[in-house]
Amino acid sequence: MTKRQFGKFITVEGCEGVGKSTQTRLLKEYCQREGVDAYFTREPGGTPVAERIRGLILDGANTGMDAFCELLLYEAARRQHTRELILPLLKSGKTVFCDRYIDSTLAYQGYARGLSGAKIRTLNEWASDGAPIALTLFLDADPVAGFIRKGGADKTDRLEAEGAEFHKRVYEGFLRLAADNPRRVVKIDASGTKEETHGKIVAVLKQKGIF
Amino acid sequence: MTKRQFGKFITVEGCEGVGKSTQTRLLKEYCQREGVDAYFTREPGGTPVAERIRGLILDGANTGMDAFCELLLYEAARRQHTRELILPLLKSGKTVFCDRYIDSTLAYQGYARGLSGAKIRTLNEWASDGAPIALTLFLDADPVAGFIRKGGADKTDRLEAEGAEFHKRVYEGFLRLAADNPRRVVKIDASGTKEETHGKIVAVLKQKGIF
Repeated sequence: MTKRQFGKFITVEGCEGVGKSTQTRLLKEYCQREGVDAYFTREPGGTPVAERIRGLILDGANTGMDAFCELLLYEAARRQHTRELILPLLKSGKTVFCDRYIDSTLAYQGYARGLSGAKIRTLNEWASDGAPIALTLFLDADPVAGFIRKGGADKTDRLEAEGAEFHKRVYEGFLRLAADNPRRVVKIDASGTKEETHGKIVAVLKQKGIF
Repeated sequence: MTKRQFGKFITVEGCEGVGKSTQTRLLKEYCQREGVDAYFTREPGGTPVAERIRGLILDGANTGMDAFCELLLYEAARRQHTRELILPLLKSGKTVFCDRYIDSTLAYQGYARGLSGAKIRTLNEWASDGAPIALTLFLDADPVAGFIRKGGADKTDRLEAEGAEFHKRVYEGFLRLAADNPRRVVKIDASGTKEETHGKIVAVLKQKGIF
């Protein structure tokens, strides 16, 4: 009996409105068409407990939420998601795509909200429980253009309702993370059409041996 | 103009069923009678966001919750509670009593569930944001006797539904914490009547200069 190979864990990162959901859907369709055994999930959420935490984080009614409380909620959802879903899938040999993961926490809670990067890195490590990220696809596009494409922010969503300055800092954070982690993070120019971006993503996944 | 004195922060700790709620109520009545300007709160909870997190933690339906996810939820609730309520009250000079705080996390999630004490201490520090605990009242009574007094565990409450071994480890954890922090933690023999225990608590609070 041969030892089953550990699956590949790929995270998809980027600002609001740059087309992450669309690209994830196109990737899913590609995998179904080509017979790639992949599982698609997202953060915060992915399991019943984590989805309940997601509801709490994104609820526009929670206006007085402290930034560090919000960070701990994201990490709680991540821990549950990773232990209950991601790690078992990887151990069974499956390829797992996750829409947002540790880099989003550094970009949003660190670079944009100004929380300590060292504390976030520690929490990311504890929450992700050593889940090895094979590749991070950073969909690189101007967040303001992204919002226009999306038809404006959803004001009932606590994060989307943040101002343009906030989303600019998130974007700069992602750029910094990409520069700091050149082996793990691949920047994908996402300023073109969705078909163009999809083509670039598939090319990178083939080049990196994922597909 | 004189600088307003920082209020005293007193935490009340102990196993399930040892009479914490009863003693907190008796203390509240004492403060009202004697004109002591004190605020009473509890964990997890104390503010709207933290109470919503409490609901998520204690919900018996969340059976598959990972222990470290649970820990992060407790700390998220603590952070919100401390920043939104406890610290502002202390800064205004008020005495604050809190039913459960950092020691409960070490006793339940550390000693009983077996999570790393070092990680819990780090999270406790980040979540409590330096709120200085003047005194911890540990209501010392056998947890099994406590359950009998309370008329048995509430099976719909995720924590109360844990077995006797679990609650024994919690108790041993509290004893260890009391031994390790002799200046901060005062053990109160809570095996007698509620009036006897109340008398002991008031005596300690007078002796420590709180009342």
